[in-house]
Amino acid sequence: MIVAMEQKATEEQIDNVIEKLVDLGFNVHRTTGVVQTILAGVGTPSSFEVADFEVMSGVEKAHRISSPYKLAGRDFRPEGTVIHFANGVTIGGKEVVMMAGPCSVESREQIFKSAELVKAAGAQFLRGGAFKPRSSPYSFQGMGLEALKLLREAGDKFGLLITSEVMEISQIDVMLPYIDVFQVGARNMQNFNLLRELGQVRKPILLKRGIAATIEELLLSAEYILAGGNYEVMLCERGIRTFETYTRNTMDISAIPVVQKLSHLPMIADPSHGTGRRDKVAPMARASVAAGCDGLIIEVHPNPDKAMSDGAQSLSPEQFAKLVPELRIIATAVGRTIA
Amino acid sequence: MIVAMEQKATEEQIDNVIEKLVDLGFNVHRTTGVVQTILAGVGTPSSFEVADFEVMSGVEKAHRISSPYKLAGRDFRPEGTVIHFANGVTIGGKEVVMMAGPCSVESREQIFKSAELVKAAGAQFLRGGAFKPRSSPYSFQGMGLEALKLLREAGDKFGLLITSEVMEISQIDVMLPYIDVFQVGARNMQNFNLLRELGQVRKPILLKRGIAATIEELLLSAEYILAGGNYEVMLCERGIRTFETYTRNTMDISAIPVVQKLSHLPMIADPSHGTGRRDKVAPMARASVAAGCDGLIIEVHPNPDKAMSDGAQSLSPEQFAKLVPELRIIATAVGRTIA
Amino acid sequence: MIVAMEQKATEEQIDNVIEKLVDLGFNVHRTTGVVQTILAGVGTPSSFEVADFEVMSGVEKAHRISSPYKLAGRDFRPEGTVIHFANGVTIGGKEVVMMAGPCSVESREQIFKSAELVKAAGAQFLRGGAFKPRSSPYSFQGMGLEALKLLREAGDKFGLLITSEVMEISQIDVMLPYIDVFQVGARNMQNFNLLRELGQVRKPILLKRGIAATIEELLLSAEYILAGGNYEVMLCERGIRTFETYTRNTMDISAIPVVQKLSHLPMIADPSHGTGRRDKVAPMARASVAAGCDGLIIEVHPNPDKAMSDGAQSLSPEQFAKLVPELRIIATAVGRTIA
Amino acid sequence: MIVAMEQKATEEQIDNVIEKLVDLGFNVHRTTGVVQTILAGVGTPSSFEVADFEVMSGVEKAHRISSPYKLAGRDFRPEGTVIHFANGVTIGGKEVVMMAGPCSVESREQIFKSAELVKAAGAQFLRGGAFKPRSSPYSFQGMGLEALKLLREAGDKFGLLITSEVMEISQIDVMLPYIDVFQVGARNMQNFNLLRELGQVRKPILLKRGIAATIEELLLSAEYILAGGNYEVMLCERGIRTFETYTRNTMDISAIPVVQKLSHLPMIADPSHGTGRRDKVAPMARASVAAGCDGLIIEVHPNPDKAMSDGAQSLSPEQFAKLVPELRIIATAVGRTIA
Repeated sequence: MIVAMEQKATEEQIDNVIEKLVDLGFNVHRTTGVVQTILAGVGTPSSFEVADFEVMSGVEKAHRISSPYKLAGRDFRPEGTVIHFANGVTIGGKEVVMMAGPCSVESREQIFKSAELVKAAGAQFLRGGAFKPRSSPYSFQGMGLEALKLLREAGDKFGLLITSEVMEISQIDVMLPYIDVFQVGARNMQNFNLLRELGQVRKPILLKRGIAATIEELLLSAEYILAGGNYEVMLCERGIRTFETYTRNTMDISAIPVVQKLSHLPMIADPSHGTGRRDKVAPMARASVAAGCDGLIIEVHPNPDKAMSDGAQSLSPEQFAKLVPELRIIATAVGRTIA
Repeated sequence: MIVAMEQKATEEQIDNVIEKLVDLGFNVHRTTGVVQTILAGVGTPSSFEVADFEVMSGVEKAHRISSPYKLAGRDFRPEGTVIHFANGVTIGGKEVVMMAGPCSVESREQIFKSAELVKAAGAQFLRGGAFKPRSSPYSFQGMGLEALKLLREAGDKFGLLITSEVMEISQIDVMLPYIDVFQVGARNMQNFNLLRELGQVRKPILLKRGIAATIEELLLSAEYILAGGNYEVMLCERGIRTFETYTRNTMDISAIPVVQKLSHLPMIADPSHGTGRRDKVAPMARASVAAGCDGLIIEVHPNPDKAMSDGAQSLSPEQFAKLVPELRIIATAVGRTIA
Repeated sequence: MIVAMEQKATEEQIDNVIEKLVDLGFNVHRTTGVVQTILAGVGTPSSFEVADFEVMSGVEKAHRISSPYKLAGRDFRPEGTVIHFANGVTIGGKEVVMMAGPCSVESREQIFKSAELVKAAGAQFLRGGAFKPRSSPYSFQGMGLEALKLLREAGDKFGLLITSEVMEISQIDVMLPYIDVFQVGARNMQNFNLLRELGQVRKPILLKRGIAATIEELLLSAEYILAGGNYEVMLCERGIRTFETYTRNTMDISAIPVVQKLSHLPMIADPSHGTGRRDKVAPMARASVAAGCDGLIIEVHPNPDKAMSDGAQSLSPEQFAKLVPELRIIATAVGRTIA
Repeated sequence: MIVAMEQKATEEQIDNVIEKLVDLGFNVHRTTGVVQTILAGVGTPSSFEVADFEVMSGVEKAHRISSPYKLAGRDFRPEGTVIHFANGVTIGGKEVVMMAGPCSVESREQIFKSAELVKAAGAQFLRGGAFKPRSSPYSFQGMGLEALKLLREAGDKFGLLITSEVMEISQIDVMLPYIDVFQVGARNMQNFNLLRELGQVRKPILLKRGIAATIEELLLSAEYILAGGNYEVMLCERGIRTFETYTRNTMDISAIPVVQKLSHLPMIADPSHGTGRRDKVAPMARASVAAGCDGLIIEVHPNPDKAMSDGAQSLSPEQFAKLVPELRIIATAVGRTIA
């Protein structure tokens, strides 16, 4: 913690800041310059707010020096986290994994067809939504438990791991028997009660970045899960909200190498939500692999034009099958492989 | 729904769009211009996605014409919604209401002192957080049920209505006996399961705008509550996330008159979260009243420097007492009153 | 300048940072903590880049402590800058000034009518564009020199000071005889060659914030003008670009008190460009005065529906005449007056 | 042009809109629905503002149907623009070109060393700034004409084409004898006077996207140049400003395929300015090629730590030499080649 005092700060104001730093558990080093005094708080108090210092009388600026997250930081596990699944698939190692499937599970036929097609194209995971609260109260809201059962059945038949989104604490136990990875959607990235519960679970979590979340906030949300004892967390870039409206979101590809520098957790890319437009999914999937992502999650639907949700951003099976070989070439350029 | 076809669109592509419009329940009007064909879908299907048209072959652009919300729209109740409370206070009428109190309930002494002070300064509502999941897992997390009891007791003693934030469906029943208005925080603006449940409740809801939410999305979230039968909803501007970092958020004051034009629901302003800095709360509170808001919600703490959360944005009781008379003058300029 | 080293930083890496700091002219204070080393560079080198430190090996974070601007900072002139005009009008004092007029000068009749009407309603300044390069090459581009002459003539006839936008260095000398205040538009806020030339001029400058400019960048642009010796600079909030599209820009009202804290320069508000919509100009003008601005610049056109540019955001003379008395009431709430 | 009227719009209001459309040169088609009336203006008036309709009484929404740009649109030249240089290099064809060199020309030795190294690594273009107005008035401002001469000499010696930034109309003639491509920087993307003059030049232009510019605005700026008769324009993504602060800008990689769909102009990527951090340049360069860019412009300095400007985002020659072979592999995945 660094606090730079205003040029005209009084000794009393400086003392107040020192006192507050000491109260929080910092050791304070004071540097008195010709124009201003700088106070460095050294130590690791469990919790404090930079803003509390910024509004104190006589303070010009305050800066946090240490990261607000500990367990999610790269220093905690410099070699990187690798998540292992029973069938030998790993995430965070040399392999770039492919997760694919429809936005929502709509029927047995649709999800089995999806599973067959994405497996054939090279995916290791089948994705599909069971609970789909939508931004309009008048839209399709998902098949619930039935969807989970179909996912598991399709996964078992075609040798695919299953990932699906959890939206509420009450759904955790319902989902546990059927899925291999819990997805936390962008809107729940700061649903801290849910994150805390997922810290108690012993299945991997795929935590998506909120559309207005900084990378630091994403890591702080991961910290909630890790702090509960669940260390198998992967993060996911899926687009942030900017002034550009041509694409639904602006996919922040640079977040991939940034997260990999700051954290030891694997980084997945979601070009479907990242762009919201089918014809932009392939270029952004390729860009993500080129930037070094550990996996992709892509919406693929047997018949995108008839999809009950997110059809506009779903690839057809043919488009997905054409994309994977391109990704394999790109993976070699960055020293990775795609099965 | 308007779909503009590309100049080079084929008849087959045009027919596909027409078919999709008809399938959704639209009547289609076709305008064939020299350079391009335009299709107008007239009617009110319950749900459709503009993006589904934008990715169709031969389509240049697609636009939604009618609002995606109905019950929240100004047309539904042109005279505006006025919410009445048992003690005669109204929101959405001529009066601009004041809601004030600490971020979190910290102790009996703190909340009773807060209630006494904000009442004396002119507030009609006491605010205070009971459940406080924070962005860091290492921060103070709230007093829970005990906080609710203290709020009610303090409110009754000093003649104040009570508002507190609900964060989960399971908290609704717990809170119901103690509060007069449920607040939904910015992070839950699109927690549609929670919104749906609040549609079943018979107490007013104060729905805050998400930091990355457009005004249209805010109204669509209100629609969820209204669609459940609870028409006593007020909306709240509390700052959006932009590139400017000096303030914690950028308070979108223009959202106040915009919402009031588009919707019949009352519009509250929260300059505390809107700025995140104590010294900017008063100017932004004044600006909000000048722009025509129906109420203010302001964090006031008996001793902001010792607050357990959000101290940096909390006013001292003296600052709040100085602000209210300024607001009264401004209210007269816009034909409103402050008690 | 503060540089926080990574936990695992080597002595060699620390030495490299110290050397770079010393090379730039800093005195270096080193704080060696249990977990990390922090280096404080004390002094005032004329120029350096924080980013140059952030990419050095072993560096976790680097922070600028002192403001990158000096002359524009509040410390330079704590009492605030007041700009005096020949006719007794002042900007930055107790009075809140009104600048009004059409986007573009279109004809003698139009600008004389505008002058008469805004004067009657209470304005001290007539505004009007002479050079109008527009975002489409197919739009009206302004009347040039003829417009300047008409502005001056209308100003002299009705007792109004004149402000108009300068877009290029070559226009400075052309404009000098006709105007009282040079406006620098948002798109030129970082046209540093133009700013440098305006530093040589002996007429006041109204510098508008760019739509993607932080407050710090606005002050740094002002520094360019001040560094040239022209201290009569006023700044202007006119909306920033955000994800919200209902309004053309999001007007950052909080920038008014923020600039007034950080700088001694007067702060003007432009609710016309700030919103882009006629019906939002009045509420945002009121909000700006309530937040403490030193002046307003508002587009007013005798017949907005027939304006050749920016008609959508221009008030009618009746709307402006109705607004000013409301502003007078609000000004009293903040200890200011409007003539 | 589509105008959707409010449900309660009167016939008089509808007539006003029709009249305005007709005045502008539109043919009007009226669709009267059960709930609302929709007016379609068909035709191609040279210039009009959507906002002018949005503020008319009785109007709910207005939408532009046709693109506001014509010459820059893909329809104008569906096969795409390919720019040919005297030495056989092309931009916009199968080849992905490499432009590299320091931010600023600092000395003969520095620019010759840079030229030698980037040529050896595979670049076709040498870049280097001659005029460097910086955001701080206290920073290095460039070598001017001397820099241009050195660039030309170095380019001729090592067989490299030359690109450098033009910042003012007066520099065009000065630069013309020395450079092969004029760069227009992000801050000048809407300097319409400069763009118009560049429309008269017969050398290619590299037009960079402004940090707050939408893709549509970028294309509209290109239209200015094309409208002057200079059709050899390439566009450049170099990062937009968002709320994320870890990187200097957020590079919008999706803009590459978006521009290539909407326009026939080649699309270059600038990962140096796009990220502002040396260690993120390589991943974003790879991502850009994977997304399909037609060229890269990258800052490379013989000794980045001693660079007089932008050192933090400059690659060392070794880093650049390591990157190019990775890019060659990725290019093959998208059917392109790198020399």
